[in-house]
Amino acid sequence: MLHILYIIAIIAEAMTAALSAGRRDMDWVGVCIIAWVTALGGGTVRNILFNHYPMSWVEHPEYLVITAGAAILAAIIARIMTKMKTLFLYLDALGLVVFTIIGCQIAEQINLPMIIILLSGMITGCAGGVLRDVLCNEVPLLFRKEVYASASIVTGAFYLGIEQLGAPNGVAIVIACIIGLALRLLSIKYNWQMPKFVYREEWH
Amino acid sequence: MLHILYIIAIIAEAMTAALSAGRRDMDWVGVCIIAWVTALGGGTVRNILFNHYPMSWVEHPEYLVITAGAAILAAIIARIMTKMKTLFLYLDALGLVVFTIIGCQIAEQINLPMIIILLSGMITGCAGGVLRDVLCNEVPLLFRKEVYASASIVTGAFYLGIEQLGAPNGVAIVIACIIGLALRLLSIKYNWQMPKFVYREEWH
Amino acid sequence: MLHILYIIAIIAEAMTAALSAGRRDMDWVGVCIIAWVTALGGGTVRNILFNHYPMSWVEHPEYLVITAGAAILAAIIARIMTKMKTLFLYLDALGLVVFTIIGCQIAEQINLPMIIILLSGMITGCAGGVLRDVLCNEVPLLFRKEVYASASIVTGAFYLGIEQLGAPNGVAIVIACIIGLALRLLSIKYNWQMPKFVYREEWH
Repeated sequence: MLHILYIIAIIAEAMTAALSAGRRDMDWVGVCIIAWVTALGGGTVRNILFNHYPMSWVEHPEYLVITAGAAILAAIIARIMTKMKTLFLYLDALGLVVFTIIGCQIAEQINLPMIIILLSGMITGCAGGVLRDVLCNEVPLLFRKEVYASASIVTGAFYLGIEQLGAPNGVAIVIACIIGLALRLLSIKYNWQMPKFVYREEWH
Repeated sequence: MLHILYIIAIIAEAMTAALSAGRRDMDWVGVCIIAWVTALGGGTVRNILFNHYPMSWVEHPEYLVITAGAAILAAIIARIMTKMKTLFLYLDALGLVVFTIIGCQIAEQINLPMIIILLSGMITGCAGGVLRDVLCNEVPLLFRKEVYASASIVTGAFYLGIEQLGAPNGVAIVIACIIGLALRLLSIKYNWQMPKFVYREEWH
Repeated sequence: MLHILYIIAIIAEAMTAALSAGRRDMDWVGVCIIAWVTALGGGTVRNILFNHYPMSWVEHPEYLVITAGAAILAAIIARIMTKMKTLFLYLDALGLVVFTIIGCQIAEQINLPMIIILLSGMITGCAGGVLRDVLCNEVPLLFRKEVYASASIVTGAFYLGIEQLGAPNGVAIVIACIIGLALRLLSIKYNWQMPKFVYREEWH
């Protein structure tokens, strides 16, 4: 079940990433690389940091094929996608919570401490988008806009908390996903923002 | 033989990277770091992704000395290098195919699946230039211009294909290199471009 | 002793990093991530390159809490911090030499060659700042300004040299730190710069 949601999520991430690439006039190779980095980069960064090999896309090279295909499709139907913007925002929110749960689970498997489990969820959910923005030469959106990383942390915290209460894993996943999704979607709808820190003094 | 070509390639990559650093007014430290990242970064990224240690430059620290020396030399003779632009474009193309073959070979040694072998070649050939562009605060050239990553994939595909046909490794290397080099040089000469995806709609 | 200096250094790095984040209008999540990357990123990059696991912040998750707390404090008292600019420049210089020594020590433990030990010190001392600048979408300051990486190399070279002469480890650390600190602070005071390489010719 989580696996099917994961496949849907990487497809959606790859498709929206393709539009970012298009905004930078990238060619088809660039589109595929940005899609791979966005959809699979979060888990890859997590695995590097926690020395957890092999990468999912090395074990399942079909993920590379699926995401590349989705990205090229997105470039072809870009006009239609723009009209389905809301759907893709929903799918992106779904991806965030699914990636977060998977990241927490992998950190649990290798017995990492509580804070690191939360961080693992956040890295899995968010690092792909950060890498995409770095490669597109932008200040990562994550750092500036919307309740994104925070929704990931909340998802992870509920997942861990409910598990600690002795609930079965499946229940913890479902409740955490619903809460995370709700938070993310409400934050988009009402344009919630985390407080910003603006500082203009020259330092160096 | 491949080893000698590799040394020539990292020297050429380091020298052209130094000019990129000069375009950003970097000091000598920056020039050396950009040269290291460009010449040795592709293999380093590959090794991190596939958990293949130690790094070549840890086993052969002389690579660091050679590339740093080449970069500083390039900064000194920048004027002369500009006149030898064509030579360096040729050497850069040589580097691309040599790095690609080496990347494929390492992925073969650790028994990775076919698609990942191709990807390993592409990462080895291209990631150094991507890192250089990120550190120089530019959208990676690779994603926007010329038949570069594609030449790497073609090189890898011919290498693997000819090997599959039962030809000796040496023959596969030579033919794949010639085809890859030809494709890359023709694409420079006739300014071939991959189709670009341009998209202007605001999404976020 | 080195451990206490290390804690002081990561706090100082996290606090100055928060101001960089403020210059890019980041929210609190962005501020924390930039602080983590700056304070802990150098050691993390070193560990990835030399396959040295686990990360210090996985073993000591309290480092994440301390640096996040310091960063948020810095955002709150940004005005006061600006007035204590000199103190933070001193602490940053202290961080540079302490990180460098720790980086050299870890490379010594895993028996890396001499050049790589120096490089390990430099990466530990400098890579955090480079990552910060990349995430803030700037050309890394390190590559362009001041005697920073050079002070790290000098620190490492004195540390290794004095050790080779047979002096006890503690003596080597103290002397190397004093020399490195002096070099860094003098370079700030007299605005020493490494020679710059400026090149304007279009190449691509």
